[in-house]
Amino acid sequence: MLTDIEIAQNAKMLPIEEIAGKLGIGREWLQLYGDYKAKIRDGLLEHLKDRPDGKLVLVTAINPTPAGEGKTTVTVGLGQAMGRLGKKAVIALREPSLGPVMGVKGGAAGGGYAQVVPMEDINLHFTGDLHAVTAANNLLAAAIDNHIHHGNALGIDCRRILWKRAMDMNDRALRHITVGLGGKANGFPREDGFIISVASEVMAILCLAENLTDLKRRLGRIIIGYNMAGEPVTAGDLKVDGAMAVLLKDAIKPNLVQTLENTPCLMHGGPFANIAHGCNSLIATRTALKLGDYAITEAGFGADLGAEKFFDIKCRYGGLKPSAAVLVASVKALKYNGGVKKDQLACENLAALEAGIPNLKRHVDNIRKFGVPVIVAINRFPTDTPQEIELIREKCRSWGVESAVADVFARGGEGGLELARKLCDLIDREESDFKPVYDVNLPVKDKIERICTEIYGAGGVAYSSRALKDIKTIEEMGMGKLPICMAKTQFSLSDNPALLGAPSGFTITVNEVRLSAGAGFIVALTGDIMTMPGLPKDPAANHMDIDNEGRITGLF
Amino acid sequence: MLTDIEIAQNAKMLPIEEIAGKLGIGREWLQLYGDYKAKIRDGLLEHLKDRPDGKLVLVTAINPTPAGEGKTTVTVGLGQAMGRLGKKAVIALREPSLGPVMGVKGGAAGGGYAQVVPMEDINLHFTGDLHAVTAANNLLAAAIDNHIHHGNALGIDCRRILWKRAMDMNDRALRHITVGLGGKANGFPREDGFIISVASEVMAILCLAENLTDLKRRLGRIIIGYNMAGEPVTAGDLKVDGAMAVLLKDAIKPNLVQTLENTPCLMHGGPFANIAHGCNSLIATRTALKLGDYAITEAGFGADLGAEKFFDIKCRYGGLKPSAAVLVASVKALKYNGGVKKDQLACENLAALEAGIPNLKRHVDNIRKFGVPVIVAINRFPTDTPQEIELIREKCRSWGVESAVADVFARGGEGGLELARKLCDLIDREESDFKPVYDVNLPVKDKIERICTEIYGAGGVAYSSRALKDIKTIEEMGMGKLPICMAKTQFSLSDNPALLGAPSGFTITVNEVRLSAGAGFIVALTGDIMTMPGLPKDPAANHMDIDNEGRITGLF
Repeated sequence: MLTDIEIAQNAKMLPIEEIAGKLGIGREWLQLYGDYKAKIRDGLLEHLKDRPDGKLVLVTAINPTPAGEGKTTVTVGLGQAMGRLGKKAVIALREPSLGPVMGVKGGAAGGGYAQVVPMEDINLHFTGDLHAVTAANNLLAAAIDNHIHHGNALGIDCRRILWKRAMDMNDRALRHITVGLGGKANGFPREDGFIISVASEVMAILCLAENLTDLKRRLGRIIIGYNMAGEPVTAGDLKVDGAMAVLLKDAIKPNLVQTLENTPCLMHGGPFANIAHGCNSLIATRTALKLGDYAITEAGFGADLGAEKFFDIKCRYGGLKPSAAVLVASVKALKYNGGVKKDQLACENLAALEAGIPNLKRHVDNIRKFGVPVIVAINRFPTDTPQEIELIREKCRSWGVESAVADVFARGGEGGLELARKLCDLIDREESDFKPVYDVNLPVKDKIERICTEIYGAGGVAYSSRALKDIKTIEEMGMGKLPICMAKTQFSLSDNPALLGAPSGFTITVNEVRLSAGAGFIVALTGDIMTMPGLPKDPAANHMDIDNEGRITGLF
Repeated sequence: MLTDIEIAQNAKMLPIEEIAGKLGIGREWLQLYGDYKAKIRDGLLEHLKDRPDGKLVLVTAINPTPAGEGKTTVTVGLGQAMGRLGKKAVIALREPSLGPVMGVKGGAAGGGYAQVVPMEDINLHFTGDLHAVTAANNLLAAAIDNHIHHGNALGIDCRRILWKRAMDMNDRALRHITVGLGGKANGFPREDGFIISVASEVMAILCLAENLTDLKRRLGRIIIGYNMAGEPVTAGDLKVDGAMAVLLKDAIKPNLVQTLENTPCLMHGGPFANIAHGCNSLIATRTALKLGDYAITEAGFGADLGAEKFFDIKCRYGGLKPSAAVLVASVKALKYNGGVKKDQLACENLAALEAGIPNLKRHVDNIRKFGVPVIVAINRFPTDTPQEIELIREKCRSWGVESAVADVFARGGEGGLELARKLCDLIDREESDFKPVYDVNLPVKDKIERICTEIYGAGGVAYSSRALKDIKTIEEMGMGKLPICMAKTQFSLSDNPALLGAPSGFTITVNEVRLSAGAGFIVALTGDIMTMPGLPKDPAANHMDIDNEGRITGLF
């Protein structure tokens, strides 16, 4: 089989105007970036406001494992299959971050015959959204130190600055730094650090903003730290909210691209799925709902983090009503959850598979708690045996849950037809009764506990003294009635990455609670959350090349 | 009069396909970025290789002053005037850096009725070239610390790392930092710093590269520091030259935009004019020469730095033969050179003007040393008196030099007709006999001395012991036969910014000599050269805003 980049380079792409045209979007709504990428101009949602929304489908997954679940690949393949069935489907995905592309992760635009293209552009600078987020983040950072340097009229306490600088690169050396060294001309020395750009609150804001005005309002609300009196200081106090919004004027517009089978895909925004909510932009999802009869979107990590935040944060803020969820699992990933070591996953092991299946069951049950109909998609890998696949399907039947095999990596949309058909039937048959899992007006601790017990299966929640103090501060500031964004390991339902399967009765420990006042959520941190990755010993970057005609190799 | 941004927002732009069409470039050569910006695809120069080149005109200036000379404005206005005369002229300019736009400088796309548009886009992210340079720079930086972290097989001496991180922001707090703090997981602590992206050697390389292959070769040659044995370590040794070139695959393509009067403008690249050569890309200049009968370009700072480097570095590397130079001066700037304080420049002062005119004369003489015909453009300001302008013209006549008033800020191309006509006459009348001012095969010190004495008017050159050691190292490495890039204050012909007018007999002190092995020049540093600006007390960013329809205010 060809590599992902070879398949992508052989794709028969249509000019992006044609893709838009099939959705009824005229050329006047497009801001082209080359022939195969376009931004959709501001105002389209307003223009289409009387058009009824399509059906919203969330693609989520079991807890991620080193074996790979292929959530994006299934999302793309499902969109392609819908197209083959003659359904008007629009995919809405997050856009990749450049840093991990240079590291170990590779691209983030699907795989095999279920990819979004142009693959190289999407995985490199795309339409510049990540760079715009970085620039807005760093303008605010520069404004903080500049304000202090020029007299510090706001009385910012340089020991309590929360805002960090950002870079879209995997660079561990920037995690913890000291800035302002070298004397008076360079400002006041202080401790600082860089986060990767997708971890910036600016990215979360971009993905929840309704429009430019709302974007600016949220940017202005960002708390950068505290003054010497202990009061919060905001980006609005520093008067750079306008300039930050100016820097994001194009980044707020959703990007239109296509799959290998010419299915339209809105790829826009990509906040972290731990310290942020991990979904593509609200504007892109709303646009997909207006343009398609089906809007197929995904959320980061497994359903415990991704789907929960999609439902409780994004759908709540955006007034979205998901019609169904596709829960992606793979034989290998379930065997891993059943205790098989990474190098043994290619061998049939029905006992281990059975031992891992409770992880799938827990996520099925969780999605049902949100009142959303669910179908399990088994993403086929070449090493899967018919017996293994049948075991998963049998379990699903016993739970009264629909399942389908997705063979989209190897066969594209053709391999997703069963899934697409069953999904459409499910949506026609079962009415969604969507509701968030907690009332946003509850006290902060009650909301956290509800997520931990209802979704994770925890017996209880423990708080560090710091976390308790953080919660007290946030509630005293009158900011307690915001949704919760859990920052937890993605590898387990618990806060211990080694606890696979479907653990229960464990205690979740909340170490720290942060306020993302601009994005509009409260982040509860459990364990160590890495916001700046490092490069591996042999990074992907070391194998990339380009010839004089611009043909790229080594990107994957 | 309207502000620059108001004039720009009222511009009647043509679709960029039409601008390209007037130059004989079909749609297939364009990579659109919205309706009014495009990159020109690789291969056009090869496609047009048999077409004769147009005439190359350099716009340069006297030493810059706080009064402003308006070099870019004159360049743009001259291009517009050429269009009005029915001449096929193409402008080639540097593209702006975002950092200074947020600081005090404002935009860099001309002014008044002589601007390049779309002004907001050009001054913000444009087509992403600066971001691509930043990313390539920082990938290399991350690769250095990552290599050391993972065992340091190359034996890099972390006390002798020359490569700095980059950001396109004015951020003084990042000038001098320590990185790798916080323990083993974050790498080895060391001193580091950020430079603004335009100061990155990657930008200089992009602007001198012939094509993608040459770009990659130059990137691989970058010396990032030394190993423990004192030998240079390159980006090629770290194996990221390919990935850096991948990141620059679109940045290497020149950007086509237009002026307020629809004159085509290639705006591409923008290296620092002190530690680098300060000219737009060689690819853009070559493209302008193929597409226009006249290619009008500019170089950074005054003629002592900008024109010298344009001639001795860019023209030498690119085999370019400039036909003429336009030397921009203003009454105010010459009065400033004659000793008038900044707040008194609006008052007529013929004595001070006469005292400042020797600065103009020196630059005229210098350009003639390169064998290039020169015309003086007096950029008119509202406070200029007829007597003042006549005094400059009279002096020019006495030197046998053509002069013309450029009133392009207030009147656009119409105000540049005299200049355009006289420039065309000059080119028809005087044959250029272009030659660099030094032989590149001379020893490093001889080349430096030749620039300092011939161009600056110095009596001699003094070297710090460090500079002498640097030169010895460079010559021992066999890299001594590269052109010299002087890093000197732009405000004086000497290395003392307070020494205005036309000083002579002074000594230039070279403190340090660096090798930009990728770009292919040797940088001689005199005085303190700032490679990371700071924001002022009341930065431009604090006044920027955008409304819900995307209309920007406060950008200037």
